[in-house]
Amino acid sequence: MNKTAEELAKEQKEISISEFFEKNKHLLGFDNPVKALLMAVKEAVDNSLDACQEAGVLPDIVVKIKEIKEDVYVVRVEDNGPGIVKEQIPKVFGKLLYGSKFHKIKQNRGQQGLGISTTVLYSQITTGKPARIWSRTGENKPTYYFEIHIDTQKNEPIILKEEKQEDVIKDHGTIVEITLVGKYRKQIEKYLEQTYLANSFADITFYSPKGEKIKFKRAVEQLPKKPKEMKPHPHGVEFWTLLKMLSQTKSKTLESFLINEFSSIGTKSAKEICKMARLDPDLNPAKITKEQIEKLLKAMQNAKVQRPPLDCLSPIGEEELKKSLKRIYKDAEFITAVTRKPEVYRGFPFIIEAGIVYDSKNFTEFELIRLANRVPLLYQAGACAITEAMKEIDWRRYGIDSSQGVPQAPMKLVVHVCSAWVPFISESKNAIASYPEIIREIKLGIQKVARRLSVYLSGKRREYQQRKKIEMFYRYAPEVIESLSKLTNKPIEEVKEKVEALISSKILKDSEEKEQTT
Amino acid sequence: MNKTAEELAKEQKEISISEFFEKNKHLLGFDNPVKALLMAVKEAVDNSLDACQEAGVLPDIVVKIKEIKEDVYVVRVEDNGPGIVKEQIPKVFGKLLYGSKFHKIKQNRGQQGLGISTTVLYSQITTGKPARIWSRTGENKPTYYFEIHIDTQKNEPIILKEEKQEDVIKDHGTIVEITLVGKYRKQIEKYLEQTYLANSFADITFYSPKGEKIKFKRAVEQLPKKPKEMKPHPHGVEFWTLLKMLSQTKSKTLESFLINEFSSIGTKSAKEICKMARLDPDLNPAKITKEQIEKLLKAMQNAKVQRPPLDCLSPIGEEELKKSLKRIYKDAEFITAVTRKPEVYRGFPFIIEAGIVYDSKNFTEFELIRLANRVPLLYQAGACAITEAMKEIDWRRYGIDSSQGVPQAPMKLVVHVCSAWVPFISESKNAIASYPEIIREIKLGIQKVARRLSVYLSGKRREYQQRKKIEMFYRYAPEVIESLSKLTNKPIEEVKEKVEALISSKILKDSEEKEQTT
Repeated sequence: MNKTAEELAKEQKEISISEFFEKNKHLLGFDNPVKALLMAVKEAVDNSLDACQEAGVLPDIVVKIKEIKEDVYVVRVEDNGPGIVKEQIPKVFGKLLYGSKFHKIKQNRGQQGLGISTTVLYSQITTGKPARIWSRTGENKPTYYFEIHIDTQKNEPIILKEEKQEDVIKDHGTIVEITLVGKYRKQIEKYLEQTYLANSFADITFYSPKGEKIKFKRAVEQLPKKPKEMKPHPHGVEFWTLLKMLSQTKSKTLESFLINEFSSIGTKSAKEICKMARLDPDLNPAKITKEQIEKLLKAMQNAKVQRPPLDCLSPIGEEELKKSLKRIYKDAEFITAVTRKPEVYRGFPFIIEAGIVYDSKNFTEFELIRLANRVPLLYQAGACAITEAMKEIDWRRYGIDSSQGVPQAPMKLVVHVCSAWVPFISESKNAIASYPEIIREIKLGIQKVARRLSVYLSGKRREYQQRKKIEMFYRYAPEVIESLSKLTNKPIEEVKEKVEALISSKILKDSEEKEQTT
Repeated sequence: MNKTAEELAKEQKEISISEFFEKNKHLLGFDNPVKALLMAVKEAVDNSLDACQEAGVLPDIVVKIKEIKEDVYVVRVEDNGPGIVKEQIPKVFGKLLYGSKFHKIKQNRGQQGLGISTTVLYSQITTGKPARIWSRTGENKPTYYFEIHIDTQKNEPIILKEEKQEDVIKDHGTIVEITLVGKYRKQIEKYLEQTYLANSFADITFYSPKGEKIKFKRAVEQLPKKPKEMKPHPHGVEFWTLLKMLSQTKSKTLESFLINEFSSIGTKSAKEICKMARLDPDLNPAKITKEQIEKLLKAMQNAKVQRPPLDCLSPIGEEELKKSLKRIYKDAEFITAVTRKPEVYRGFPFIIEAGIVYDSKNFTEFELIRLANRVPLLYQAGACAITEAMKEIDWRRYGIDSSQGVPQAPMKLVVHVCSAWVPFISESKNAIASYPEIIREIKLGIQKVARRLSVYLSGKRREYQQRKKIEMFYRYAPEVIESLSKLTNKPIEEVKEKVEALISSKILKDSEEKEQTT
């Protein structure tokens, strides 16, 4: 039974990425039927939104979920995006680790090249059914229809069917239909509502398996400013990246290499970096030795350069977030939001946004709404930096009870992390890794909105006490007024009028103060 | 700036698995320099232990960590394993998703094919230095030396140097040397201690960067029983796996396919499954349709068959775990351990082991020691099923204070999950996903050892109260004895003798009781 090196060698094999995730599908978020169905909707909707934004189209998205037999569902997501050219369709849906967003530094919903294809893989594993895709790239183009499987041993698409079809898609767009083992829960509605909260420029229609139709109507007629791609920032670069960049650059000197290939480096800082590294600015990048790269790297990491550009980010915006919250929680008594200033994490800029909705009449409990790059995060809350930051807040300081760091109040706390690179704890993109820089910023964001809520609540408390006092006053008013009338020797009517005027002006003043603090 | 489908298509690209993890190295556990250094040691030691066990060799492992410049370390791990044949060395160290353990269902330390090569990748990214490997497969074979890089765009090894060397390795074994950016913490010692706790048949010597030498001496002269590979269990099979197995089988009939390719299916249950699925047992597996596979799958999932075989597992064992704990915590006042009966999760058998060490003199706080397949888990405790299970225990029931589910007592709680497939929450293999079946079993294991501790503690409390009472008695003894002497009309000496005899027999009885409960 003991094995020799030769016997062990025979067992060594290459594992394709598809086989890897076939066995480890929980890493992709497909650990149970409920989650699987949500992940399918999420990956498809994320793709539609990204594509529409890239093409400058206001998104119209229709999501339909149908139960075709017990625990087997068809998820259909239809968009009016730019469409996908025929040659790309098989790879986009039938190959893991394939995509356009992986190599770009800018805010995107997808960033790993592992999105919709993982859903196709899961569908295939659980039902054996192919993914069905229709796509059209413009009015004078045909609609292409594909049925696709993944060859898991090769991680390549298998085309089962390919044809032109008529009258399926108006103008341009993509339809995906995926059949999978799942379980339907209301959660999907919640996911779509939160998606709408962060993307109110989208029109989202949802047909549930129970036949309900839910419409999230576009509220903003303009797309957010498109995030721009950024070059790597010198503070985030690593040895191997630098080595590869130096060997591939077209720049002829080290100085021009630094200026051309990195963000935030101008002539002055390029010269400064070369000086710190004791390297000649005229050095040929192709001829730099490993020892020199080491020095260069250290200089780049320590040089004082400007922070990375921020146009690679696309936050929701303070006003927009507040408006979105008001749109969804119409009768809430208090709503506030904040967009923090950008911060930098390993050369990647990021922005934290936070909001609070307080409603003692309609909410029965606390809810944390986590968003990353405009995408709601619905799982692994316990392992997420947003939850951790929330728990580190001393909520009593803001007049809010808490248990184990979780506020015990009728409120919703929204936190949005947007970044050119969000460090998710797994490929399922449901929780953000707890890096100190990110946690710190999230805490500051939450604290800001919590402070505003606390002012509101103490105003409310004051108002309540005021009202109690007035009620008390009115109870004894006849006697008081009579006494005052006797003391001042003025008629009862006159005294009554003056007292009432006094009280109402006080109430007015209170509510004005309240207005200013929200 | 708006992009057409054609422009978007040009940006689509394949992403190699190495590129993916180069950007997402935190998924592999390399999120910071402290963790990175530990991961390097862990991946190398895991491999050494697995290889030695496969070859039936009692492991002698030497770990050396040297700081060669600020925050740059060389990790060297040397073993007396079977060695690696020359042709395999580059792939084992220079290719991600390559290995012998991925396709086998049995308890293994590695299971993903992502182990030591991820360390080589991280080393290359941060320092540009190649991995250095020496390996020899037997006395009459030469030692081969390799320097290896990873071509990240292709995920293939690059051999920088290859040569035969003399007098490096005695008989057989492998040496790995990896240079990486890291930070050294005592944690590595803790990791090795815990590794020894779960593998006391190994001899582990550690040279720290500070020049200390720490030796964990082999305590058991026999390897644990080797886990056997098992065939898939019918309850864990999925559509696509079944489809692939049917198309690849050499069996000529459905019945023989079921018997030959699955565990726990005999003639009787094979016939039963065919009947449930309304399929002819003589059907040719190659000719089964998708609709028939669907029926077959349902029948397989619902059929009453025996649980999977358990010889694919290799638990530490109750006595062995207790001994190991005694060896490491020599002066502990109370030690207990339990090995639960095997349970099944999605067709994979698993076993939970738990232990408690209580020591009010030497421990200042509580510690949870998590182990999976004999490997210590040192990170992401908050996201781990073991932590979750521990927090769900009502510790007060066992006479132990707790805060937020964490015992507040001078004790160590050890939990070992061993399984043919451990569902880790990420590729870094530091936390186990919270599946209900697994959490339930862990809780039962913890409860069992907690109950034993509680008996010990209540005995201790009783003893304490007894002692208090006796002390109280002695304080008043002269008066009592005098009174007794007067009452009984017996001399003081006689009364004193009898009373003392009475008390000591009571003490003796108490401690006997205690003995039996531990």
